[in-house]
Amino acid sequence: MALIVQKYGGSSVADATSIKRVAKRVTEAKKAGHDVVVVVSAMGDTTDELIDLAQQVTPLPPQREMDILLTAGERISMSLLAMAIHNLGVEAKSFTGQQAGVITDEVYGKARIIDVTPSRIRDTIARGEVAIVAGFQGVNPTTNDVTTLGRGGSDTTAVALAASLKADVCEIYTDVDGVFTADPRIVPSARKLDRISYDEMLEMAASGAKILMLRCVEYARRYEVPVHVRSSFSTHTGTLVTNEPDPSKDTTMEQPIIAGVAHDRSEAKITVVGVPDVPGKAARIFEVVAGAGVNIDMIVQNVSAAATGLTDISFTLPATDGATATQALTAHQPDIGFQSLQYDDAIGKLSLIGAGMKSHPGVSARLFAALSEAGINIEMISTSEIRISVVTRADSLDDAVRAVHTAFELDSEQDEAVVYGGTGR
Amino acid sequence: MALIVQKYGGSSVADATSIKRVAKRVTEAKKAGHDVVVVVSAMGDTTDELIDLAQQVTPLPPQREMDILLTAGERISMSLLAMAIHNLGVEAKSFTGQQAGVITDEVYGKARIIDVTPSRIRDTIARGEVAIVAGFQGVNPTTNDVTTLGRGGSDTTAVALAASLKADVCEIYTDVDGVFTADPRIVPSARKLDRISYDEMLEMAASGAKILMLRCVEYARRYEVPVHVRSSFSTHTGTLVTNEPDPSKDTTMEQPIIAGVAHDRSEAKITVVGVPDVPGKAARIFEVVAGAGVNIDMIVQNVSAAATGLTDISFTLPATDGATATQALTAHQPDIGFQSLQYDDAIGKLSLIGAGMKSHPGVSARLFAALSEAGINIEMISTSEIRISVVTRADSLDDAVRAVHTAFELDSEQDEAVVYGGTGR
Repeated sequence: MALIVQKYGGSSVADATSIKRVAKRVTEAKKAGHDVVVVVSAMGDTTDELIDLAQQVTPLPPQREMDILLTAGERISMSLLAMAIHNLGVEAKSFTGQQAGVITDEVYGKARIIDVTPSRIRDTIARGEVAIVAGFQGVNPTTNDVTTLGRGGSDTTAVALAASLKADVCEIYTDVDGVFTADPRIVPSARKLDRISYDEMLEMAASGAKILMLRCVEYARRYEVPVHVRSSFSTHTGTLVTNEPDPSKDTTMEQPIIAGVAHDRSEAKITVVGVPDVPGKAARIFEVVAGAGVNIDMIVQNVSAAATGLTDISFTLPATDGATATQALTAHQPDIGFQSLQYDDAIGKLSLIGAGMKSHPGVSARLFAALSEAGINIEMISTSEIRISVVTRADSLDDAVRAVHTAFELDSEQDEAVVYGGTGR
Repeated sequence: MALIVQKYGGSSVADATSIKRVAKRVTEAKKAGHDVVVVVSAMGDTTDELIDLAQQVTPLPPQREMDILLTAGERISMSLLAMAIHNLGVEAKSFTGQQAGVITDEVYGKARIIDVTPSRIRDTIARGEVAIVAGFQGVNPTTNDVTTLGRGGSDTTAVALAASLKADVCEIYTDVDGVFTADPRIVPSARKLDRISYDEMLEMAASGAKILMLRCVEYARRYEVPVHVRSSFSTHTGTLVTNEPDPSKDTTMEQPIIAGVAHDRSEAKITVVGVPDVPGKAARIFEVVAGAGVNIDMIVQNVSAAATGLTDISFTLPATDGATATQALTAHQPDIGFQSLQYDDAIGKLSLIGAGMKSHPGVSARLFAALSEAGINIEMISTSEIRISVVTRADSLDDAVRAVHTAFELDSEQDEAVVYGGTGR
């Protein structure tokens, strides 16, 4: 008998029929002898509809009231799911984030969880009932007001609850079968991964893979919560995010070098042209951008042209922050002293991720060769210990992903042993 | 400067435009120097839509979960209203029933308020802000779960808050101009009352006038909260429910004898035919009906036919309880020993209400004469100190209401002095 936390997203509870299907799934786990805690998002498009209502009332809603509004969504889905489970003969009770003990800071709209004290959830489990918990929400303990956790918040709720309850596994139900070596819509031969490490999953999430949000993976890694990403539309095993070795694999074999290829179309590039190449100017640029609340991803500084004493600095950022960043820089043009700004949102980012990179030289060389053979130009490069990212033109990103996926023998036509076994690369 | 509690129903906050209109009204009261607390219902048809969703999931939703579901409605309207007020430059904060200190018993679906501890509302007022409170909901302090107050619950929330805050007035905004001498849809010449006593309003509510729910009036009477029933679509003065005399009227003049004529089409009549006329049989009938959770209104026992030793007993009850009551009686037919049941839902009830009846004999005689002249048959009669009710055929109810309204000189063509002054009747 295990303690399982299951999380269902908005598309899994979009209407009464879907809610009944989820209820069936929950009761099956319960009847198999497990204790079950369910975290649920708002139904389908509820959150977007509530945001739209707020926009009709005011262009600038106070964030405290926005959080009160949005948390109505999970109230609806959680109570309906409890009813549907009850209808199948299993007792179920629903709880708000506050009732489930999800304590956050006071940053409305993107609160961070600071503690989880799920005594009511423990009591509910102890009575043999299923506990349903509203995802995406918590309570600011100073004011006893509701807070929301921001994008991907329900996944974070599930992992945080699983950590606090010391659950055996946190199952994240979604509309795909698990984590793939690449986005199957771009690479039809992409393979589902059986396992992936926290570090790799973290880099995948940070590099544009949308299956799990960064914060949720960070939480899972910190508390070592095994996360099982799987489909709510099938009973197939999905992908287990864990640092534990796979007991079904021969441990004397090497782990795979590459976990997957992620891509991201949501970034833009700003080039600051003609920056005086003197100490402190680059720092000033990034101070201004950070001061505007914008996070920067990759940075490239061109070699200074000796004749002019000027250099160009390029950086990438979320395209949604493009206007904010350019306005902030333009306002500081006199004191930074640059000549002009170039804004480019037709870029794409490809990231190759794999814990095996650490011990396998030559991965970068193989990546660049693959892109070169495919005729794809690299505009920027950045690396971490287990990731290499390159910026390309947006319209060559799909070709780049396919070329790299093939070059690293990730396509499912390949013998799995090639991927999982060591090949001396 | 006064402390005003304003309550807006679902039709007053049905969409973004309506919410903005309410916000304007609230800020006008605030800018006139008053402290304002607003109680709000769910938007338009939200509650019905949520009930429909629950029905799609299960025919028998657990009531705790039903309350969690339904209270999502006020969460949406209260936060949107706070946003709309904020947008007009006045600070506003919204609060759930729990946050506003509305403590109830644990009867989910029709909880009763047992205490109101509105410290957060007092703090909000003290900061010069408008407090918005979710109507219809409270908290069960034993479990910290949300409860709903049942039909008309938002009015009760408003009056209970007004009592606890010692507000100067509780304004109930609705879609009509106030309390009328009869339903203007039936009696076009019905007049709006400037004032009505708690006792009269209570009898009006109990007799089918839908403008205020019974529980709300009971609460207002017990705590002597002045209630101002008025339209959210105009700025006209409405009807003040109070026991205070009208300072603008000559207090040496008599109060009006009749406040109004109420009608009710929601009842049905059950006749238990052939009951043995022996002690205890009638009591047994009403035990069975009460045991099924059904409230009885009027009762008539026919004179026993000496030859058979059998009698008939008729009573009225809410038509929605008709099936429950007949099933309960049929199940007990052997031990009660009646011959058959007759069920009749084509009845109507007319009630004449007025505190002046106490000191004016002849009101009944005039009522019966008016109905007789109009050719309307009376099937049952019941009276209280300030009310006379009669049951007629449903299809003659409208004619009955018009005839009685005219007979007591309530029509607006009459000189008001006739109604408000004593006429020696």
